Amino acid sequence: MKLKNDPRELAKRLVLAASGQLKADLVIKQARLINVYSGEIIPGTDVAVKYGRIVYVGPNAGHTVGDTTRIIKAQNRFLAPGFIDAHTHLDLYCTPREFVKGFMRHGTTCVFAEPAEFVSVFGYEGMKLFLREVSGLPIKVFSLVPMCSLQDPKLGSSREMSPEEVEEAMGREEVLGLGETVAWNRILNLDADYFRKMDAARSANKRVEGHTAGAHDYKLSALAAAGISSCHEAVQERDVYERLRLGLWTMLRHGGVRNDLAETIPALIKGRLDTRRAILVSDGMDPGVLAREGHMDLLVREAITLGLNPVTAVQMASLNPAEHYRMADYIGGVAPGRWADMVLLNDLRKVKVHTVISNGRPVSVAGRPLAQLKPFSYPARYLTSIKIRDKLSPQRFMVRASGASARVRVIQFVSESITKELVWELPIREGSLLPVPDRDILKAAVIDRHWNTGRLCVGFVKGFGSRLGAVASSVNFDENNLVVIGHREADMAQAANWIRQKQGGIVIVDKGKLLETLPLPLAGTCSLKPASYVGARLNAINQRLRASGSRLERPLNALIFLTFVTLPRIKMTDRGIVDVKKREFLPLFVVDP
Amino acid sequence: MKLKNDPRELAKRLVLAASGQLKADLVIKQARLINVYSGEIIPGTDVAVKYGRIVYVGPNAGHTVGDTTRIIKAQNRFLAPGFIDAHTHLDLYCTPREFVKGFMRHGTTCVFAEPAEFVSVFGYEGMKLFLREVSGLPIKVFSLVPMCSLQDPKLGSSREMSPEEVEEAMGREEVLGLGETVAWNRILNLDADYFRKMDAARSANKRVEGHTAGAHDYKLSALAAAGISSCHEAVQERDVYERLRLGLWTMLRHGGVRNDLAETIPALIKGRLDTRRAILVSDGMDPGVLAREGHMDLLVREAITLGLNPVTAVQMASLNPAEHYRMADYIGGVAPGRWADMVLLNDLRKVKVHTVISNGRPVSVAGRPLAQLKPFSYPARYLTSIKIRDKLSPQRFMVRASGASARVRVIQFVSESITKELVWELPIREGSLLPVPDRDILKAAVIDRHWNTGRLCVGFVKGFGSRLGAVASSVNFDENNLVVIGHREADMAQAANWIRQKQGGIVIVDKGKLLETLPLPLAGTCSLKPASYVGARLNAINQRLRASGSRLERPLNALIFLTFVTLPRIKMTDRGIVDVKKREFLPLFVVDP
Repeated sequence: MKLKNDPRELAKRLVLAASGQLKADLVIKQARLINVYSGEIIPGTDVAVKYGRIVYVGPNAGHTVGDTTRIIKAQNRFLAPGFIDAHTHLDLYCTPREFVKGFMRHGTTCVFAEPAEFVSVFGYEGMKLFLREVSGLPIKVFSLVPMCSLQDPKLGSSREMSPEEVEEAMGREEVLGLGETVAWNRILNLDADYFRKMDAARSANKRVEGHTAGAHDYKLSALAAAGISSCHEAVQERDVYERLRLGLWTMLRHGGVRNDLAETIPALIKGRLDTRRAILVSDGMDPGVLAREGHMDLLVREAITLGLNPVTAVQMASLNPAEHYRMADYIGGVAPGRWADMVLLNDLRKVKVHTVISNGRPVSVAGRPLAQLKPFSYPARYLTSIKIRDKLSPQRFMVRASGASARVRVIQFVSESITKELVWELPIREGSLLPVPDRDILKAAVIDRHWNTGRLCVGFVKGFGSRLGAVASSVNFDENNLVVIGHREADMAQAANWIRQKQGGIVIVDKGKLLETLPLPLAGTCSLKPASYVGARLNAINQRLRASGSRLERPLNALIFLTFVTLPRIKMTDRGIVDVKKREFLPLFVVDP
Repeated sequence: MKLKNDPRELAKRLVLAASGQLKADLVIKQARLINVYSGEIIPGTDVAVKYGRIVYVGPNAGHTVGDTTRIIKAQNRFLAPGFIDAHTHLDLYCTPREFVKGFMRHGTTCVFAEPAEFVSVFGYEGMKLFLREVSGLPIKVFSLVPMCSLQDPKLGSSREMSPEEVEEAMGREEVLGLGETVAWNRILNLDADYFRKMDAARSANKRVEGHTAGAHDYKLSALAAAGISSCHEAVQERDVYERLRLGLWTMLRHGGVRNDLAETIPALIKGRLDTRRAILVSDGMDPGVLAREGHMDLLVREAITLGLNPVTAVQMASLNPAEHYRMADYIGGVAPGRWADMVLLNDLRKVKVHTVISNGRPVSVAGRPLAQLKPFSYPARYLTSIKIRDKLSPQRFMVRASGASARVRVIQFVSESITKELVWELPIREGSLLPVPDRDILKAAVIDRHWNTGRLCVGFVKGFGSRLGAVASSVNFDENNLVVIGHREADMAQAANWIRQKQGGIVIVDKGKLLETLPLPLAGTCSLKPASYVGARLNAINQRLRASGSRLERPLNALIFLTFVTLPRIKMTDRGIVDVKKREFLPLFVVDP
């Protein structure tokens, strides 16, 4: 019996199992089924499972119970489909398996992830590494080819996949499309590379995920016409309406990057909108939030708390994403033929996860993991990816200038991710342009760590707020270069050199002392430690930055988004200061005409 | 510019058109858009069209209007997506193009059809004939491979497609799956042929359409587990609930065969069910109803009249079927990137169709057709398909018996399609078993017309009611043999011979006189005449049968369903009387044990 390779044989056996001629492996008795198809809650529902699939759903599965059938008495608990996260990242701060361990406990049985960080560092090799790591896990991980690494070859310098590599990747069953199109202006500009990659996805009948932040009216129509099928950048009411009305699968976010539900869920409710194309996504989880509060259970709970009907909220984390990825024959609901991915909830409105079943097997009960993850070891080359040949001297962080002062462009943080341009007159001492920490004018540097070029750009930022000597990170979207913010060149150099030595990480240095450290040796973006540890370290780092003056909630995000060359309005890479809209570099010095 | 063969080039041009850099071919101004994605009606909506695709939907398409752009002022009419019929037949009574002509006028821009009759008569050749005929029509016709021809090789004798032919057909882009699985008991019995064909469809990522009449609880679960994705046999409230809850796409029917909406729509409303998987289908249109009352506009109207929200009703004839067939990127809604298939309605609740746009071109305005159908001529072999070598004598319709009387099985019509077994003592005269027309016991004969075998079965029916000598038809599901019902052997022979001579048709003969005739030369199932003519003839024939005593609404359906060996409970083919449940032949004579 080669069930795996013989779908016909499997289909026959599922028929026999449904009718009780082959006995079930698992039967759930008397649950209150959250039926995502009919939109009802149906008490007294039995579910029978065989070969990891659901074979019977109805009032009485007695005929499927045999001597070896395992029975789970639901005792009137709510039974939901396993939760799906339709857009996440598993290669940021923690390893994919550490995220998966956390997800499992919180009822998530399937995620769609794009390894943007791995690809930014290793190119196609990073994609393959990711696919190897996530295969054979206790829950399903489907992948998308990142389109944000490289966001824009004109401006950034990280690695990317070639069109040929994208075409090859689309041939893999577990790759379901092209990841978020952050650089949507390249689509409007008819970028040949972009269209070739989109074509590869659509020719393979796979998805092109949108990221259409700030696009409206005819621009949004143009992106939809080009074949973009979704967007997870609806951050306010108007965005939700516009995207749903154009037939885009509208992903509402609450997670590591932003929490938008307080704006977006009320829009759904107020407009009495059809929610079938609304989807809850994390867009990557903060490890600390994951450890403390949960994953998709948290998102569903948030949506319910904001007033959404609980069944609707569950649909937005199960059937809707399954439909979007055209996977609803296999996942997203409790119905015959689907994989037996299910969650028993103690409480519906609080979304209290009790038992999590994946592929027909309980993987977690009351927060205790039951499934072991096969160990995975990373070849050394993935742990030594910071390519900076020479140690950095403090001098490298100086900007040469003459005279007593000069007017320069300053990147002002409007929020953690959005900036605007400011012009500021900075003092010059001993031929070097100085920051003004008293006025919160700090230095920022971005250093190439991919190509061993020694390339480094120094500029100035305002709004970061910390008075410490330097904070540095090898995590930033989607460049993952070395970003350093600070006001003492010696501290900045020490911070950068610490990351160089540790082959990745986040560090705070003040007056020559390491105040906080978090090594991220895998790709320079991931710790090998558990999510709870990493979450605690990130909290401590953010806390330290706030305590030293930053008014940002998560100051680290300012470093992360500094290189994000497709969000407004002025950003910075190792190659220079970037005017996002014009897709051009700007000189540091402002010379009046 | 080879747009057709270069999707990348097309996508680029759609982007330019959306942003007004290429001017639109067509712009609809100021419509009240029925937005099937968001579930809203949005006044003041403009839609721009280029290359047959929608490129812009929003408040103002002014930027897309150029010198040669055609403008349609909607004048506040409602704009709906073109209607989709997700399950129909185009090879019954009229030719495919005659149906398409009628559909176009009524707002239908896409149908999913399975040429069950052509295949029953010509096998794979019939499928290919159908695909040739429906290619290049002004509206979209997608095809399914019939699974009902042959319903059951154990019982019937029409042609079918081999598994190899099904596999080949699944490779065609315009073939979207396997047609209705009327013989669902064969699935429960693990019929190898059935599973191989289902496997061919699923391997090609295509649909297996259900026909699960009468299946409940674990049998329905088993069919869903086997990969059945839909059912159009929900005829009462319970059926609707059961099917939707199991995740089946539940097709609610109103058309040539049955009108179920009065039972099924109230079930949807009463249960406040999620309707995303509910779909309106005709299951084949009666040509007369099509000519007089319409097609999907009629179904949407019926659903609204029965209390359904109009936007929901439109979704059930547009987005929902598009989602079911995984075609929603291309059809089913008014959104950028989709084919410009749209309907302007003068009135929403009455679903009064004004302008019909298909592939970006108006094909009908106020009932007047604007699009011409390319002529199509059938090779002679498709017009000469009645394979009965010898004329039939009255003697062939006699049943030999000895004694004064004999107890025989009688097929009693409970409805036009459902029968039950009756035992009746029939008189014998001159060695021949006699009908008892005074008690409405008539003779029925089924004659092989596919294989030139001369095979013929004679039995008895009750409940038909007509007192005329004979009525005969070469249309019957899905055998399309010669079926004759009557009480005078000479009239029965004359009727059969008329069909033999005309190479197909329906005829009423009484005392040697032809009372009604309708030649159906194409495959023996289709007239070459317009739908209005054929509809009028069918009405006249049914009317004549009613006038002569039949209490059935459409007595012809009793002939049509006599050979339908998968509906309860006792049927008849050229090979014998059939016990449907047991899948066995029954002797005519009842011998007490």
